[in-house]
Amino acid sequence: MLIGKVTGNVWATRKLDGLNGFKLMIVELISPAEQETGQSLVAVDTVGAGIGDVVLIARGGAARKAILPSEGPADAAIVGIIDNMETGR
Amino acid sequence: MLIGKVTGNVWATRKLDGLNGFKLMIVELISPAEQETGQSLVAVDTVGAGIGDVVLIARGGAARKAILPSEGPADAAIVGIIDNMETGR
Amino acid sequence: MLIGKVTGNVWATRKLDGLNGFKLMIVELISPAEQETGQSLVAVDTVGAGIGDVVLIARGGAARKAILPSEGPADAAIVGIIDNMETGR
Amino acid sequence: MLIGKVTGNVWATRKLDGLNGFKLMIVELISPAEQETGQSLVAVDTVGAGIGDVVLIARGGAARKAILPSEGPADAAIVGIIDNMETGR
Amino acid sequence: MLIGKVTGNVWATRKLDGLNGFKLMIVELISPAEQETGQSLVAVDTVGAGIGDVVLIARGGAARKAILPSEGPADAAIVGIIDNMETGR
Repeated sequence: MLIGKVTGNVWATRKLDGLNGFKLMIVELISPAEQETGQSLVAVDTVGAGIGDVVLIARGGAARKAILPSEGPADAAIVGIIDNMETGR
Repeated sequence: MLIGKVTGNVWATRKLDGLNGFKLMIVELISPAEQETGQSLVAVDTVGAGIGDVVLIARGGAARKAILPSEGPADAAIVGIIDNMETGR
Repeated sequence: MLIGKVTGNVWATRKLDGLNGFKLMIVELISPAEQETGQSLVAVDTVGAGIGDVVLIARGGAARKAILPSEGPADAAIVGIIDNMETGR
Repeated sequence: MLIGKVTGNVWATRKLDGLNGFKLMIVELISPAEQETGQSLVAVDTVGAGIGDVVLIARGGAARKAILPSEGPADAAIVGIIDNMETGR
Repeated sequence: MLIGKVTGNVWATRKLDGLNGFKLMIVELISPAEQETGQSLVAVDTVGAGIGDVVLIARGGAARKAILPSEGPADAAIVGIIDNMETGR
């Protein structure tokens, strides 16, 4: 999984039905030391994340698992809200 | 998902049958602040996107979900047209 | 999908049976403006592409769809020959 | 698979049920010569790895295989602890 | 698929059962002109490759196809030994 910080929202009125009812959040990827990487993505929220939260992102088939029983075409999902990270580097 | 701007079209007369009937669009990937990343891809359109639209791109198995019941060999699909993005950065 | 230019061939006598009978082509990835990206891959041909052709590349599960009913271990396939690209950038 | 060094842990109280019971470890990716690449990820541990271990990381569907019978939304897993690497470069 | 040169081996006594019996080889990715890219990965061998061989690497679901009937958590496999490459660039 990747570590990210939720920084915003995306609104799309016209979208595939499978994405209805999900919040689409902008996530900036960060390092374990919380440094910005300059990369971002849009992830479907599955845990009630909000702006400013540091989150765990699953991609690919794992994101589709995360939104089951929805069969929506998501390739990235917020699957956890990180309370704490400890890294020796 | 990734954020992109539709900038053009691709035509391919000779292609696998599974791609027939889909518009193949050139999408330039952009940041949430709408800055160009210099990366692009070709995505199958599923929502009626047009040149200039800012769109949501799903890749991998999610793109194949997006084009069901077609079993075409697509690895990227436009799954939403973005009306608005709000990001705190 | 990605855009590439076919530049060569790869021969492998010793390979998994699932790859038998497929042409393995070297593809240099290019931008929509046909600039080289410096990246390349080896793709299984499914549409009769030749050296110099500008092609559409599908990767991952989409490549495996492309070569059905073969169950070969391909992760990249040429799925179309591009006749024309028009991009506003 | 990728080679990494376990450098820390991630705690997430609020997370999808499928991730319950797994240790979430921060892994810094390294080269075969054990040089840092500057990239990192969070992987689910399946082999009892600890801080400082050099490990083998599987991603994507392989990570989901690694955690079976759990159907958790993991896209990266530690699948081995590397005892020794020998490379001619 | 990607092109690589086998440069070494990885030993992991403690690993998931699904990886037992496979040789784990360090592969440095190279260009079609056999220039080093600086990237490497660990791949499961399925064709009897040895140190110094130039090989074809399949990743993701294709790697899992390559090791069937094993259900091991591999995300990269050596699927062919390249005898010859010819590229016009």
